[in-house]
Formats: sequence, structure tokens, C-alpha cells
Amino acid sequence: MGDKVILLDAWPSMFGMRVRIALAEKGVKYEYKEEDLINKSPLLLEMNPIHKKIPVLIHNGKPICESLIIVQYIDEVWNNKSPLLPSDPYERAQARFWADYIDKKVYDAGRKVWATKGDEMEAGKKEFIEVHKVLEEELGDKPYFGGETFGYVDLALITFYSWFYTYETIGNFSMEAECPKLMAWVKRCMQKESVAKSLPDQKKIYGFVLGLRKRFGIE
Amino acid sequence: MGDKVILLDAWPSMFGMRVRIALAEKGVKYEYKEEDLINKSPLLLEMNPIHKKIPVLIHNGKPICESLIIVQYIDEVWNNKSPLLPSDPYERAQARFWADYIDKKVYDAGRKVWATKGDEMEAGKKEFIEVHKVLEEELGDKPYFGGETFGYVDLALITFYSWFYTYETIGNFSMEAECPKLMAWVKRCMQKESVAKSLPDQKKIYGFVLGLRKRFGIE
Repeated sequence: MGDKVILLDAWPSMFGMRVRIALAEKGVKYEYKEEDLINKSPLLLEMNPIHKKIPVLIHNGKPICESLIIVQYIDEVWNNKSPLLPSDPYERAQARFWADYIDKKVYDAGRKVWATKGDEMEAGKKEFIEVHKVLEEELGDKPYFGGETFGYVDLALITFYSWFYTYETIGNFSMEAECPKLMAWVKRCMQKESVAKSLPDQKKIYGFVLGLRKRFGIE
Repeated sequence: MGDKVILLDAWPSMFGMRVRIALAEKGVKYEYKEEDLINKSPLLLEMNPIHKKIPVLIHNGKPICESLIIVQYIDEVWNNKSPLLPSDPYERAQARFWADYIDKKVYDAGRKVWATKGDEMEAGKKEFIEVHKVLEEELGDKPYFGGETFGYVDLALITFYSWFYTYETIGNFSMEAECPKLMAWVKRCMQKESVAKSLPDQKKIYGFVLGLRKRFGIE
């Protein structure tokens, strides 16, 4: 098809990782461009003038923004393998509901853990654990959120795992102790090459976050 | 098909109105159940245990939550008439992007106008106008956001029009003066029976909001 695919991304972004996983699942070759978020490139500002945020997928010169919208686009365009959303409209709506829940809850709770201290951090930690307990209950005894195969909701959530060491170390808690069933799902996802190769090393994220905390003057 | 469709809704909700428009566009008959949001029904709590919010569409006993997810579901299930999302994946992604922009920006800015006073209200007003100028620019010279026919983005935004009299009166500004092209689009949308019949009277919303302001002790 001669598709030209470029991904504007930043390595620690759990939103960018979602797109990396989707492209890996579909076997799409692409050019990865790391963005300096302190000094955004003219290309990023041109391709996402509204939000000025990564990730942006540029497909044959045309930009698509917002991670879950990009993932749905990838699933619709490269529809010959590894379907990410279910084909049944009701199951699709459920998948969209849970991905939206993750977007509304997980990042903010996680941010309160790593970007604050004291009572605010404790409140964030409690929220983070509660949100994951809700997700663990939704997972139930299924291997993946959508059933037997890795899909949209798994992809939306698993990228946060790369930040777990950071949340756990700063917040002094254990996700294994809090959500053992969810952690079994994490291990299942991490056995997939598309996932394992798209997530950076947890300690590298931790180093990056310690740098941010210093810059923000926390602790 | 013997479909049983129930909508749990609250009359002043711009999110509920989106679902009403989508069902009207598709010609779907349904039972409307007004929720008392101060005293939520056991049915609402059962059907949306996660967010406990309206609107909820109950289709043959199964709940779908979150207005834009419901609208996409309606478009996928009743796909024989009035397509709401474009069929082209790139255009679909653009429609999803703008609907998401509306969700992230318009409600919060509007809320700052009607639920605060003084400097906070003035900041909300400025934000509200800026957001609509961005949307007006995206609309450009097209009759509707997606082009020639009424669709997903139009539906996502037009429901806020029922609150315009409230925002304008409390904030002391005129959308006609600020965004004349967008107001021409409003009039175009309001000529559609599916829209006009789904939006409550603007003065009735204003009365409702004045009651809320009194209850919240504003002014």
C-alpha cells in the first residue's frame, strides 16, 4: 500500500505506548519520532495545534490525535489482523466504556501519587488502589478484559504498568498485595511481544519521575 | 425486531439530549424515564453502578452508559438510516476528536459561567467564548461539522444551545455577537425536527439554573 506512518511520541508516555502496542499488534512499520515536551517541535505544533500533545499518528501526511482515537483508527484501517475492538456493538460499547473509565480515573490518581506528597499523596494512593480494584472486579476470571484475547481495554490499561514501580515506591504500597488477580493479568499481557517491546523499563521511568519531582520542588 | 429501549435521562441534561437526538434521527421508539438526580432510582444505580449518572440507554435489558458511547452504539445498531459517524476511518477519527474536544472543554467552561460569580465567572465566560471560536473555525464554511449533513459532532455540540440563554444572561454576553457563523449553524440544526424536539425551552433551563444557584448559595 506504500503507507507512510510516523508516530510523534515521548518514551515515558502511557498514552504513546498504547499506540506503539496497537501498531505492533497490526504489524505496521512506522517511523518513531521522540518529542522534547519542554521544547515541542514545529511538526508537533502543526500536527496537533489544538492540544499540542503527543501521541500524534501521521498517516500519509494526515494527523490523528488522542491515544484512544488513534487506536480505534488503527483498528479500522489495518483491519486484516489482530482486531482490537470486539465486532459486536454491545461489546464494543462496553470496551469503550472501560477504556473511558481508565482515561478518566487512572492517570489522575497515579499523578496524585507521584506528583504530590503527604496527605494529597495518600489520598491519591487510596484512589489509585480503589480504581484498580474496580477494574480487577470487571476483569473477573477472564484472561483478558474482552474475554479470551488481548484487546482494546487491555491495551488502554497495561501501559500504566510501566509506572507501577514508581507509584509503589513513592507511595509505599504493593499492587501484588492489593490486586493479585489484576497482577496475574499484567503478567499475561507482558508475555505478549507487542506489549513487552512497547513498554520502557520501570526503573528508567522511576529515574525520570525523580527528576520531575526535583524540578517541581516536591520533597 | 421487538426491541425494548428505555432511556434514563434528566430533562436539562445536554448529555441526555444527545441520546434523544440520536434516537429521533434513527426513528427508534423508546420509553423515556425522568430521573430525580437528588434521589436516584434503584434502576439507575443498578444500570450504571460505576458512575451513577444519566443518560443510560437500556436496550433489551442491557445498559449502555456515557452519552457519546451511547450515540456510537445507536449508530452501529440502527445502521439502516441517518448515519451519524462518517464511514471513512480518517473522517471518523476527526469526528471523534471534535466530539472529545467538546466533552473536555464546553461543559466545564459553561459550568464556570453559571455556577460561579465575579472573577471566576469572567474567566469561565472568556474560556467559553474562546472554545466556541475554535469550534467556529473548525466549522468554517461547511453547513455542518462533517460536511453536507447533520452528524456526530453537530449532535455533540448543539445540545448546549439549550443553555445559551442561561450562559448569556448570567454572563452578560451575546453568542450572536461573538460567533455569528456558529449561530447560523445553530439555526440550521434547530430546523431539524430531531433536534428541535429534543431540546427543552431555554427559559425553562434558565429557571432551573436560577434554582440551582439559589440552592448553592451563589449571589
